[in-house]
Amino acid sequence: MTRFPTVAAFDAALADLPPPDADARGAAQARQARLTKPPGSLGRLEELAVWMAGWQGRERPAVARGRAVVFAGNHGVAALGVSAYPAEVTAQMVANFAAGGAAINALAAAAGLSLAVVPLDLDRPTADFTAGPAMGEAECLAALDAGALAVGDADLLVLGEMGIGNTTAAAALAAASFGGPAADWVGPGTGVGADGIARKAATVEAGLARHAGQLDRPFEVLRRLGGREIAALAGAVLAARHARVPVVLDGFIVAAAVAPLAAAAPAVAEHCVAGHCSAEPGHARLLDRLALRPLLGLDMRLGEGSGAAVAAGVIRAALAAHDGMATFAEAGVSEG
Amino acid sequence: MTRFPTVAAFDAALADLPPPDADARGAAQARQARLTKPPGSLGRLEELAVWMAGWQGRERPAVARGRAVVFAGNHGVAALGVSAYPAEVTAQMVANFAAGGAAINALAAAAGLSLAVVPLDLDRPTADFTAGPAMGEAECLAALDAGALAVGDADLLVLGEMGIGNTTAAAALAAASFGGPAADWVGPGTGVGADGIARKAATVEAGLARHAGQLDRPFEVLRRLGGREIAALAGAVLAARHARVPVVLDGFIVAAAVAPLAAAAPAVAEHCVAGHCSAEPGHARLLDRLALRPLLGLDMRLGEGSGAAVAAGVIRAALAAHDGMATFAEAGVSEG
Repeated sequence: MTRFPTVAAFDAALADLPPPDADARGAAQARQARLTKPPGSLGRLEELAVWMAGWQGRERPAVARGRAVVFAGNHGVAALGVSAYPAEVTAQMVANFAAGGAAINALAAAAGLSLAVVPLDLDRPTADFTAGPAMGEAECLAALDAGALAVGDADLLVLGEMGIGNTTAAAALAAASFGGPAADWVGPGTGVGADGIARKAATVEAGLARHAGQLDRPFEVLRRLGGREIAALAGAVLAARHARVPVVLDGFIVAAAVAPLAAAAPAVAEHCVAGHCSAEPGHARLLDRLALRPLLGLDMRLGEGSGAAVAAGVIRAALAAHDGMATFAEAGVSEG
Repeated sequence: MTRFPTVAAFDAALADLPPPDADARGAAQARQARLTKPPGSLGRLEELAVWMAGWQGRERPAVARGRAVVFAGNHGVAALGVSAYPAEVTAQMVANFAAGGAAINALAAAAGLSLAVVPLDLDRPTADFTAGPAMGEAECLAALDAGALAVGDADLLVLGEMGIGNTTAAAALAAASFGGPAADWVGPGTGVGADGIARKAATVEAGLARHAGQLDRPFEVLRRLGGREIAALAGAVLAARHARVPVVLDGFIVAAAVAPLAAAAPAVAEHCVAGHCSAEPGHARLLDRLALRPLLGLDMRLGEGSGAAVAAGVIRAALAAHDGMATFAEAGVSEG
């Protein structure tokens, strides 16, 4: 299992990304062409089946151990008035996850996914990134490693997060990774108004200015501007890649966690599908930069992995068709 | 149960459309506002839950008897070279449905839906609508009534179809209902090329010319230009409305079956959700005229109810969240 004991281990993992299994992909594509339907007529369901085949390394991929993981962290910048909710809501929601009362509990169950919640030092928020690095090196490595550990034996990994203030950190990561003014990357999050959005933009600009010249390496971007749950997401994505586990990304924050990795290694998200495009305005822009076309567009903006869990249900449907359909020869149906 | 023994019964059903249960809708909306998430953050999942509540008449709607129905029919216009597949494929695919080997078998099972297949006189194609009415009055009523019967005791109805040549009939229905040149409404269907598309447009124009001045009433549009499976779809939609059964529409042909009804009674599809927008170019235009915003956009273009079945999985997810989530008060989470 890929782990991140050192920055060098993280850099090495990012520099050596395994490709999908070309034989399994080819076999799945050939199977799709034999199934009783006009070629291509299942659209993205066909693409998903072939994508899953490549990463799982088998002609007929399946989801037997689908896992949703929600990483939770607290942010120093939450004190700057960037959220509609107080910081204690992070811990309250973690308790709600444990009690089974949150959206992700219901949506993971509906998609047949197990759910793991990983709270990361909630009583010790990251530092305010406008004043200095959000995390020390050891803290950031520990969070990356917590992400790697959470991959476990999943055969489909659905990634989500919870963290009051984390759309601001995510906007900072996106801006640091792909450029553009802070205003391009901030939005209402869970529901701030125009004043709050302006505060978010100012916070992001201040963070970028504070760390100018020190944001060339992905690890430093994660450490200086990110948060524990964001670093854990990045670690999970990278570790899943090395384990060839396909990943469903949730919303803006999850995409932002991938952004520094993708800026350095554009192929890093090839084993990922964007579960949906959220209502957060920066998300569509970010997915475009990541070359990920979202599967769903349901105006969701909750986080927690909620949109990715719904998308996992679509992936299950894709695999059900891929595995369960008869071929033209088996069914005695004339081909066009 | 609403049935269609006469044209007058059909017209009466269309003229007297029941509304959703406003109390149940209101209760569901109020419940959504109390659940542990920022207001509106589940986007269309919230809308779906409230919509289902209104039609099922209860604050917490559920799908215990979700049913996919595939109506199949054969078309006289298939002889005009408008399809990539020979007409015998309709019956072959009905056999494939019975054997469990088609996409809809796998996708209905994945969404927890029962599947009913209703072949309608496959050995007796409708007449070529460029030469005269596709159906006699009794034939069309029988098809409408077969649709009504298929609603049964479903609490969610997923509607699909199979019929070689039926995108041409559907394009004729759309043009007759909403105007515009035939070229606006025809497309590749299951895979014809430019020549085939041109033949489809010419066929539609010829049909519209042949029946000019006789397409004012929805029944006549269905009878003259439609097909048995298309009339059955229209009958199912209308009967479901009177039984307050929510309906998930599949692709272009299903939407076209609703078009003549909607042209006469614009509220007719309020109990329907458009499961997806297919790759058939006329579908987006038709959904726009029907004031239906598609739930999914997965580039599907198979028919059979395949896209609607995938959408039914999203509806299940919406109801799981609506029913399973804790309220702020129950979970002890601070509101924003």
